[in-house]
Amino acid sequence: MTRVRMDLFVSLDGFTPSDPTPDAPMGADWGRLTASYTATRTFRERLGDTSGEGTTGVDDRYARAYFEGVGAEVMGAAMFGLHSYPDDPDWKGWWGDEPPFGTPVYVLTHTAPRPSIEMKGGTTFHFRDAPVEEVLAEATAAAGGLDVRVGGGSRTARAFLRAGLVDDLHLLVAPVFLGRGDRLWDHLTGIEATHAVTTEVAESGEIHVTLRRS
Amino acid sequence: MTRVRMDLFVSLDGFTPSDPTPDAPMGADWGRLTASYTATRTFRERLGDTSGEGTTGVDDRYARAYFEGVGAEVMGAAMFGLHSYPDDPDWKGWWGDEPPFGTPVYVLTHTAPRPSIEMKGGTTFHFRDAPVEEVLAEATAAAGGLDVRVGGGSRTARAFLRAGLVDDLHLLVAPVFLGRGDRLWDHLTGIEATHAVTTEVAESGEIHVTLRRS
Repeated sequence: MTRVRMDLFVSLDGFTPSDPTPDAPMGADWGRLTASYTATRTFRERLGDTSGEGTTGVDDRYARAYFEGVGAEVMGAAMFGLHSYPDDPDWKGWWGDEPPFGTPVYVLTHTAPRPSIEMKGGTTFHFRDAPVEEVLAEATAAAGGLDVRVGGGSRTARAFLRAGLVDDLHLLVAPVFLGRGDRLWDHLTGIEATHAVTTEVAESGEIHVTLRRS
Repeated sequence: MTRVRMDLFVSLDGFTPSDPTPDAPMGADWGRLTASYTATRTFRERLGDTSGEGTTGVDDRYARAYFEGVGAEVMGAAMFGLHSYPDDPDWKGWWGDEPPFGTPVYVLTHTAPRPSIEMKGGTTFHFRDAPVEEVLAEATAAAGGLDVRVGGGSRTARAFLRAGLVDDLHLLVAPVFLGRGDRLWDHLTGIEATHAVTTEVAESGEIHVTLRRS
């Protein structure tokens, strides 16, 4: 059974950086939020680092799980990078020649339709101007029984949360206080009625919160 | 050296229940926030339960530390219960004949001065209409080298945080989403400049966050 998964970085005070802009592609606060994740061996290996360095504890266990069993991805236009070069039909996003997904990726957009882009390594970007439920149905069919990940950014994440479409939500809560950004916590009010909450702290101090639909 | 300590219950989405009112003395959400604390053996023993029941893990370690080394307490009028019977000079608060403090307790109030009240078990309530710095200085002198605890409620906690007076802040973060109350997280923005953050998860799922001035 396909489940809809989402992994979100959030500060202890509940902020996710606002959606990226051309001036701050990934948001100024991303470094602080993702430090314990980018320190894992799994993440480093994904970047081609074969030194064997990187943490191998609790954070790395979650990082490995991130890449397992996902058959299709959904993301917002900003996460693809569509807003940066809206008029360039050859722009293939921020993810390089060989994006880390290796699956069909459905990019939500309200701009003019674009042809799909096939990248190296099994990633194909499809652009869809449709309700999230409809795009999710298409991604689920493409996932072939594996899970669908909703990648972000924060606007897309909110849309899926609001629609109650997320089965498994993994929050990487960094023990920092950003004091700015989007208030993720406000979009989780009431989620305990449908999802069980578990918590775990990594050696790094990172708090992993899992909300799983039962 | 006296340190100023504060222990606060907060939900994962950053809410502390609003200050109590006569209709909801401790706030409707307190039960959910304090469940793992009231389940500890230390708390039960404080209530006179000699059965030996109660949890003895990480939550209980923090509960024991709560009562250790405190020489004086400061709290808001609402936490004492002053607002419930403002015109009754004989009202001795919500804490029973033998309050759990066993120290001088300085109650912040803007109402008419009241005489101090000596209770059983070493607790004496003093009522002060003065700036928090001034009351803290008096409490520090009374603590005789031990720590001063700022007990709450949320308005008093905010006043001490805003004034930068808290050396050690222990947050008992319950893995629940209240969606209402006072937004504690908003009052901690920037605290990392002066305080080191550590995190730990208890067997109950409760997240203990410690902010310690270095």
